[in-house]
Parts: sequence; structure tokens; C-alpha cells
Amino acid sequence: MKTEPIGLFDSGVGGLSVLKQFVKFLPNESYIYLGDTARVPYGNKSEATINKYAEDCTQFLINKGVKMIVVACNTLSAVALDTIQNIAKDIDVVGMIKPAASDAVRTTYNNKIGVIGTRATINSNVYKNAILEISSKNYGTSEIEVFSQECPLFVPFVEEGYLNHPAITQIAEEYLLPLKNKNIDTLVLGCTHYPFLKQLISHILDDITLIDTGESAAIVALRKLAKKDLLSDENLTSISGRNVKIFVTDYPNHFFSLVQSLLGFTIDSPELVEL
Amino acid sequence: MKTEPIGLFDSGVGGLSVLKQFVKFLPNESYIYLGDTARVPYGNKSEATINKYAEDCTQFLINKGVKMIVVACNTLSAVALDTIQNIAKDIDVVGMIKPAASDAVRTTYNNKIGVIGTRATINSNVYKNAILEISSKNYGTSEIEVFSQECPLFVPFVEEGYLNHPAITQIAEEYLLPLKNKNIDTLVLGCTHYPFLKQLISHILDDITLIDTGESAAIVALRKLAKKDLLSDENLTSISGRNVKIFVTDYPNHFFSLVQSLLGFTIDSPELVEL
Repeated sequence: MKTEPIGLFDSGVGGLSVLKQFVKFLPNESYIYLGDTARVPYGNKSEATINKYAEDCTQFLINKGVKMIVVACNTLSAVALDTIQNIAKDIDVVGMIKPAASDAVRTTYNNKIGVIGTRATINSNVYKNAILEISSKNYGTSEIEVFSQECPLFVPFVEEGYLNHPAITQIAEEYLLPLKNKNIDTLVLGCTHYPFLKQLISHILDDITLIDTGESAAIVALRKLAKKDLLSDENLTSISGRNVKIFVTDYPNHFFSLVQSLLGFTIDSPELVEL
Repeated sequence: MKTEPIGLFDSGVGGLSVLKQFVKFLPNESYIYLGDTARVPYGNKSEATINKYAEDCTQFLINKGVKMIVVACNTLSAVALDTIQNIAKDIDVVGMIKPAASDAVRTTYNNKIGVIGTRATINSNVYKNAILEISSKNYGTSEIEVFSQECPLFVPFVEEGYLNHPAITQIAEEYLLPLKNKNIDTLVLGCTHYPFLKQLISHILDDITLIDTGESAAIVALRKLAKKDLLSDENLTSISGRNVKIFVTDYPNHFFSLVQSLLGFTIDSPELVEL
């Protein structure tokens, strides 16, 4: 089992920010990444539909023999984690919510945490609930206040590569200033597209710690695999990315160059599959 | 057959701008509108995937006994019209491209036409080819120049209801000023979301005639139905919208209020279906 790959999935390219963190923290592992690009985006769809899509993706990764499943999408983690764990049975499933919520609780000094995400993620209150639950469990009672903000236009801007354009700066200021006014000291980037906007967000919220859900999840995965003695002993060259295999359900023209530029390392051409 | 409904379909809400024009020009007809909201958007997907989705939607409308199929989406009209017509057999199929291209050729005085659309529509060159073909056919040779511009961020702004926000104004100016500099006198709104931005676009391109593909298609449909003696004799109250039945493949929370506000008239709650 040690040499089996870790499987990650997302509706599209957002989860690549998670894959990037996994390759950084677990460079000796092999990876299978599934992007359900034929049905992207999930963020504005109903829970029933998202659960159905999550089933298809989970089954695909299980059939590939993965040793761990990473739900590299906040919307999926918010609404379909139970469905995924039920199908995965004894294979560990790592979602985005709990690892990032734990890191946020550990990071805050003034007990004021901000959360940004898609409409579906924010409406589900999943981060707020997780943060309050974790802090209550750790400290008996929670003094933490959570302030949430949906940022629906961030995803299309990232997918257009408009990471520093004046229009996204203006939109970002409108989305983020209410959180700054609440005096938050920690902000959870509750959507896997948002780490690609880190520079812009840091510029607006200059003294606030940003929690990257991919980084939090990679560290949790590292501990889980170590505990089960499932860490790979292979000596792979992480930078080359030759240990990464990408599958997509649709393969639009510009997709490969987008993937390459977001990942920042070379991979083989993605393979088209039907779920 | 006269009282059978006209069927329209689109990946999501954009086609409602087309439905609106049909209800205006053909108020005595009944309508079935299918929005494939579980797989929206189509605009950035591959031709193979779009054709597969088009087959599913066409079959659904045929099973409902429609007397005409309106492809209320420019991307679908650009890449899947043949597929749809093959399935529809002797049922008339009206797409968005030819009617709007004809109107643009008829409208221009200075022979400089602009076209805006999604990346898929613009890359297909379908409008440019249709405009040149129609003008050559009508006048022997074409002196018309066509200038195209993709506007990928317009759709997410419309779906957020940001129709007059400073950020969309800035993006729109960047997209449209190159066309204005080419001295176009006619602009095809080659995406069914764009009529919802008419006011903003008119403001930037103040003396340029805008071609709304839904309006062009409604007039073509009227003529086609009249020719086959298939126009309904019913006397329906168009404003009430009680002759409109909407089906969706996913039904997110905010969807019904979005549909109502875009249509501007009251309808029954959409019905959820699986394709």
C-alpha cells in the first residue's frame, strides 16, 4: 500500500493549489488528480447534485487503487464529506474544512477569525461551526467570533488569470474591507482557487494571517499516513512532477497550459475519462 | 400541432433573454424552457462534451412534443446545431447565429460589424463566417469587415446581478474600446447573457446598433411557423407567463428569484428533471 498513489479530486483547476501543497509537503508520494471539468463549477449547484457528482469521483479514485482520498474542494468538503467517506470505507478521506479550522483556531490571538468562500460554502456555515466546535472542545468554551463573506466573483477572475487586474482589486476590496473592519487577525481562504490570489489579499489585509486550506490538509494527511505507516519510501523528484497523473472529464483547448501555469511544474498531458 | 409548445434550451439562465423576446413577439404560444443547470456553463467546455449535452436536451424537448426547437444559447448554436437538427428530424430548429448574422448584415451602413461572445463562440469564428457568407450570397461579394472580441467575465457578472457595478464597467470598457476604435456601427451580442448588459454596453458604445440574438431568432421563428401554418390561435395572456413551463436539471436555492427577476414576469416554480 505504501507505494499506492494519493488521490485528489475537485470540479476543476482550483484543487491544483491543494495538489501543489501536497507535492511540497509529501514530495515522495505519487498522485492521481481528477478534475470533473465537464461539470465544473460545483459551487453554485444544489447539495443533491454535488453529492451525486462526489460519488462518481470517489468511485473513480477507488478504482485506481488510491491509499488516501483528498477532497480538494471546499464546497465538496462542506456538503459531501459523509457521502465520500461512506463509499471510501476504510480508506482515509481528508477534507478541507477541519484542518483549516484547526489551524485558524491555533493561529488567532484576538479570537476574531474571518472566512471567505463560494456562496455554497458560506451558506452552509460549515467553517463557522467547525471553528466553534474545535475551540469549544479544546478550551471548554469558545470565545471566538467568526465573520464570513462570500466572494463569488473570485473564481472566474482566477480562471481568467486576472490575478492583479484593477477590477479584481476593486471587487476584492469590497469583499474584504467589512472583514478588516471587524478587526480579524486570521482569514481562512475557504476556496481552493483563492490561494492564487494570496498576493492581492495580503496587500488589502496586510497584517492578517492567511490560512491556505491545501497546506493545512497536507500536514494532516502527512500525520495520518505516518500513523498508519503508509508513507512512501520512494525517492521521487518532486519538482519534475513526474509522480503526478491528471485525469479530466472534459479537455478544453487552453486547459493544459492553464494547469501548467497554475501548478508551476511540468506534468504529462492530462488524460480524458468518462465517469 | 398548432397548440403544441415551442421548446427552448440553454445551459442555464442566459437563454431567458431569448424566451423573453419570444414571449414578446409570439405571445399566443406556449413554451417549454429547459435549463441544464446541473452542467452549466457550456461556454468553456470542449465541442465533444457540448454535443453530448445538446443531444440530451434535444431528446428531452422532443419527448415533450414540441413543435419547434430553439437553441437559446450561442455556444450551442455555434458547435452543435447539426447534431440537434439530426435528432429533431422534421421539427424546425432555430439557432442564434444565422438570424443575428442576417440582421447585422442588414443593419450595417459602413460595413464594419463587431461580434462579442464567450471564448468558445469567438474561437469558432461562426459569426464571422455566417456574416461573410450571407453578405456574399446577397450581394455577390462581401465588403464587410468583422471584428470579434471574447468577453469571458460578462457571464459571471450577469449571474451575480452586477449589471452596473464600476468593476464590470471597467472590464466592459477594456473589452469594447478596441471594437469602438475599429469604427464599427453594429455589434452582435453573441451570448444570450449579454442583453442583460445592454444599458452598460450602449453607454460605452453610444451610437452603435446592438443586435440581440433572441429578438432576431424570434422573428425568424415567427416566419417559419407562419409558413407551416403552425402559429397558435390561442389567446393567451403573455404578461402573466402562465404559458411558460421551466425545467431545470439542478435547482439551487436562489435560482427561482433569479429567473423571476431576469424574466420580469411571474411563472410557476421550475420543475427538477434528470436528463
